[in-house]
Amino acid sequence: MSKLNFSISGTSITATRYDGKARQFSLVVDEPRELGGEDIAPNPVEYLLAAYAGCINVVIHLVAKELQVAVSNIKININGDINPGRLLGLSSADRAGFESLNVDIDLDTDGSRELIDKLFEQVKDRCPLNDNLSNSTPVKYNIKQLVN
Amino acid sequence: MSKLNFSISGTSITATRYDGKARQFSLVVDEPRELGGEDIAPNPVEYLLAAYAGCINVVIHLVAKELQVAVSNIKININGDINPGRLLGLSSADRAGFESLNVDIDLDTDGSRELIDKLFEQVKDRCPLNDNLSNSTPVKYNIKQLVN
Repeated sequence: MSKLNFSISGTSITATRYDGKARQFSLVVDEPRELGGEDIAPNPVEYLLAAYAGCINVVIHLVAKELQVAVSNIKININGDINPGRLLGLSSADRAGFESLNVDIDLDTDGSRELIDKLFEQVKDRCPLNDNLSNSTPVKYNIKQLVN
Repeated sequence: MSKLNFSISGTSITATRYDGKARQFSLVVDEPRELGGEDIAPNPVEYLLAAYAGCINVVIHLVAKELQVAVSNIKININGDINPGRLLGLSSADRAGFESLNVDIDLDTDGSRELIDKLFEQVKDRCPLNDNLSNSTPVKYNIKQLVN
């Protein structure tokens, strides 16, 4: 199958606000006041959690259909802790991002515990966000600098 | 410094649409029609790219202030390829998520190339999203299943 390219393009509006476009959609990122922002939009790590929850939803339904198991009333909550010390330049003791993530899922189903375990094995294996969070992803920076 | 907890809570609305809340903010995730959705909102991996771009913006400004270098007119574009074969259950040849990511940044600055290189070393080290993408993050699933 041919690869799909996904992209975002955008501009720094303030020291915390970024306005981006992904296809026809506008996405605004900001920080809460305690992290120096004006709190007009979710912050970067909240966007990451939304991405992960949305991805899990898609893959649950894909796999449930394949396994012919009914699923409904699905609630997905994700949370995690970050020590902001590294971000803020105060301490390098902890990693910069989420130490770990807790994914809490409630669902109604006609499937057995074994079938639902099998479903979530597949979800973990096939969810793009689960892959990019669980495993390392190479990143290439290309900086174009105009010196004033 | 005490840790910060970030969370999203939400509900599956359709097989591709997830409606979540992070603090006072609503986030809607969907898929384009070619991936089975109704295309009413960005898809999960576009949310991930927005998260990363927004995070880089925040950390550029934090570090620029520390290094006393002026930065302005910052544009941040990120893109990457995904082979959807694994997600769709067609092939396990490639990983599920982004193979790699390209981060393109344009900025105006009064800083030397060396100073800007130093700035981006710090950005990579201190950006939470850069950490969670570049390194592995443990994830714990807790599934509550109501059998009908």
